[in-house]
Amino acid sequence: MRKPKLKARQGPTAKPARNRRSAEQMLVELKRCLREISDLTAAGDILTWDQATYMPRGGADARARQCAALYGLAHEQAVAPALGKLLDALAHYGERLPRDSDDASLIRVARRDFQKMIKIPPDHVTRANAHGSASYNTWTRARPANDFAAMVPYLERTLDLSREYSSYFAPYKHVADPHIDDADEGMSTASIRKLFSELKSQLVPMVGAICERPVADDSSLRQAFPKAAQFEFALNLAQRLGYDFNRGRLDLTHHPFSTRFSSGDVRITSHVSENNLGDVLFSTLHEAGHAMYEQGVSATLDGTPLGKGVSAGIHESQSRLWENVIGRSRDFWEHFYPSLQRVFPEQLGSVPITVFHRAINKVARSIIRTDADEVTYNLHVMLRFNLELQLLEGRLGVKDLPEAWRAAMRAHLDVAPDDDRDGCLQDVHWYSGYIGGRFQSYAIGNILSAQFYGAALQAHLDIPREIARGEFSTLHTWLRDNVYQHGSKFAPNDLIERVTDAAMSMTPYLGYLREKYAALYWLPGSLSAR
Amino acid sequence: MRKPKLKARQGPTAKPARNRRSAEQMLVELKRCLREISDLTAAGDILTWDQATYMPRGGADARARQCAALYGLAHEQAVAPALGKLLDALAHYGERLPRDSDDASLIRVARRDFQKMIKIPPDHVTRANAHGSASYNTWTRARPANDFAAMVPYLERTLDLSREYSSYFAPYKHVADPHIDDADEGMSTASIRKLFSELKSQLVPMVGAICERPVADDSSLRQAFPKAAQFEFALNLAQRLGYDFNRGRLDLTHHPFSTRFSSGDVRITSHVSENNLGDVLFSTLHEAGHAMYEQGVSATLDGTPLGKGVSAGIHESQSRLWENVIGRSRDFWEHFYPSLQRVFPEQLGSVPITVFHRAINKVARSIIRTDADEVTYNLHVMLRFNLELQLLEGRLGVKDLPEAWRAAMRAHLDVAPDDDRDGCLQDVHWYSGYIGGRFQSYAIGNILSAQFYGAALQAHLDIPREIARGEFSTLHTWLRDNVYQHGSKFAPNDLIERVTDAAMSMTPYLGYLREKYAALYWLPGSLSAR
Repeated sequence: MRKPKLKARQGPTAKPARNRRSAEQMLVELKRCLREISDLTAAGDILTWDQATYMPRGGADARARQCAALYGLAHEQAVAPALGKLLDALAHYGERLPRDSDDASLIRVARRDFQKMIKIPPDHVTRANAHGSASYNTWTRARPANDFAAMVPYLERTLDLSREYSSYFAPYKHVADPHIDDADEGMSTASIRKLFSELKSQLVPMVGAICERPVADDSSLRQAFPKAAQFEFALNLAQRLGYDFNRGRLDLTHHPFSTRFSSGDVRITSHVSENNLGDVLFSTLHEAGHAMYEQGVSATLDGTPLGKGVSAGIHESQSRLWENVIGRSRDFWEHFYPSLQRVFPEQLGSVPITVFHRAINKVARSIIRTDADEVTYNLHVMLRFNLELQLLEGRLGVKDLPEAWRAAMRAHLDVAPDDDRDGCLQDVHWYSGYIGGRFQSYAIGNILSAQFYGAALQAHLDIPREIARGEFSTLHTWLRDNVYQHGSKFAPNDLIERVTDAAMSMTPYLGYLREKYAALYWLPGSLSAR
Repeated sequence: MRKPKLKARQGPTAKPARNRRSAEQMLVELKRCLREISDLTAAGDILTWDQATYMPRGGADARARQCAALYGLAHEQAVAPALGKLLDALAHYGERLPRDSDDASLIRVARRDFQKMIKIPPDHVTRANAHGSASYNTWTRARPANDFAAMVPYLERTLDLSREYSSYFAPYKHVADPHIDDADEGMSTASIRKLFSELKSQLVPMVGAICERPVADDSSLRQAFPKAAQFEFALNLAQRLGYDFNRGRLDLTHHPFSTRFSSGDVRITSHVSENNLGDVLFSTLHEAGHAMYEQGVSATLDGTPLGKGVSAGIHESQSRLWENVIGRSRDFWEHFYPSLQRVFPEQLGSVPITVFHRAINKVARSIIRTDADEVTYNLHVMLRFNLELQLLEGRLGVKDLPEAWRAAMRAHLDVAPDDDRDGCLQDVHWYSGYIGGRFQSYAIGNILSAQFYGAALQAHLDIPREIARGEFSTLHTWLRDNVYQHGSKFAPNDLIERVTDAAMSMTPYLGYLREKYAALYWLPGSLSAR
């Protein structure tokens, strides 16, 4: 039995009875508008989640159209002149409120978002989306076929569109700056170049020293592990960290992600490989890190632009903190390894924890970024960051990308892929969206994971002992109080300063790597020489 | 890594370059508008499906708002003046096309829908939705608490709103007519009263005769059956019938339903009870029947008002046909019972097919509609239909409903519930939407299931033998060609006439019941006396 679905809502053009509204009334209206944009975006995200988890393949065409319709409506409302007028009218009111108050932050951030959004002509959005979809579809066939030539015209157009996008934000110091600012507000090509140059100078000798030592044996992770038991174990780990399953869930997908539909519904997805136990363990911990951040955002910010993590780099810091700093630590496995052995007695019963811990921290010069260990990972990121800049600057032609990739791999990592499939075709990023600002956040996240963890340790020296007992509430609570709850209220650099009493710094991260890998690879002194 | 989701769409107010558009151009524009309404509605339905299957409980509040936002936007576009103008401008063009053509049907049906929709004032929609949600929420607590008094003020308001709704469609012969026409176009209070009066005069003695016989033993269905194996078996049944899992899927929920997101994504949900094997078997067959109808609608009608089943009654005819006429037949289980026994050897290994077949067709006077067998089920429907009319006419006061319910149960079924929980509080319908037109479709579906099946048999005498071999393609193809593919192109009565060469008739249904139950209850002659 069905009845026509009749639901009405207040029209977006509904006008109040009088022309002069109080600031409070306008604020209520602003929140209504923003919540509607948030609801439409969330609806699109729900459809996207379903597409990646449960949708039957026959649903693909209509689903692409349905998602586009929802994001399109959200975009339409996000650039509506009425919203701009409301924000302008509230600007002065917002400036008189305490800067850190929710309302002042909301008006400030929503206004900045609006002013950015309206700089982008609608026809650019249409062209960029259509091109992105076509390029992605071609890439899904070109990568397995190792056919870089097929991607050349797409990449050239992507490069044009990426420069065109930047042009709407002129003047800028570097053509990549608008893209970088989108992902990591307050950062720039110059600041990241400086950061990466320092980081590289420290990492290259570190990788060299580690790779001179005997390679870690990770064959214990490569046995046959029944999938259902892997999934169950990873789910329990996420729960133990503090990921709230009353406000979330874990499902399987091909490329794991986390997604927020509201403060009460933040989901994670993961991937299980029968012959790689690390896959489900670390993708689940990684996504749980992202999701605990989102679950921890103050519920009062829900439905506003403040109600989500503040930047790509800060977000990655949280996933990396739980995945690597915690999840690949000896303390963590002191507690959980015995239960993992009980779940897989045949596979792990006779594997000592020392061997397992080395296996999950195996360092090797490899060709695939997503499989890289936490030391070499940053070198993969820098390589991509540099190539992005060269492409955008016009110093590197698209057709020369494969060779430049191989040369950079040899220079950065002393290995090179046999083909483009595992070379410059390996990442989806450039083939589905802009070139520019796509990779730096991963390295920023690594750097910040150690900086935030260091600040937590300063506040609570007991955290490592708690972790070794399988307890995470002190750390989780500290992160929630200091990072998560604020959502996007504070700009990334302000948040870092506020939480750690310092600007972003590599020092804690390098210290963390040196200490950890000196112990793992029996390199006393040699890694901490600099 | 995330990039702002920027998608643009053609604005809804986009005007063509010239004022005078050809009919073909307007038709393209009409289809674009309708597809957008369809996409928004589908998005709402996807969120509703998720809510009923996988949503964590923390997501409830935001989800209600998100669904309301989507259905609200769809409604706003469905009553947009621009759409009305387009439909008016196309009316003449449509009338000159062959009446059965897709385009003529589309213009005709979309125009009728629009003209109905705009009669309902937006503030009524808002009030009715808000009241429906509040009433439903109260009912979820009042039913387990057996607290009818708590529902009285809600039901009284529902009754007012239901009459108000009808008033927008005045003049009418009976206040229930607009509600009935919404569900089953072309039917009316008068036509259904006549139908039900005849049906009752036949069913009451049939139930009496059956109930004089020894009651069927269904204890074989009430053993402990592991849930996963039940689910697996039901899933295989749905697949065997012809439900296409490339364009659908089966999930578990509390109250089973089927739902269509596009022609390529029509899902079913089911329910498994450890101690009631019939639950998953027949809810799955029932929902697969609904879903095969939707999967069979011509893909060319997708995204338009024609791209779905035509009425509640016709839809029920398809679910009932597969659930009852096929799924509770001896032929069907001749093929599938041995494999069911192999799945549950301890429980069913020594239960003969005759006993099993009688168990799944046990007739008994019972108090819960959804648990009723296919003979007495119609009496439950008639009882509700009559009470709806009395309430709407003002001949029955809400506070007197519990007693009227018990009296009607005794009169119709010779049993009465001990309390209101299993009496007039048992169905969600009146507590979540209008009173009026909510139940007749179930009985219409029963009647039509036999009429359609009879027509299929006339065309293909071999169908029963195929079913006994577990083959359904002849029947499925016939239904697709004759019923499914047309979607909502033909009005229900036209479709019945077209498919069966006759108006809706009880004769095939009564014949079906007599033959089946005479055999099951060893009543040769007695049931076919009339």
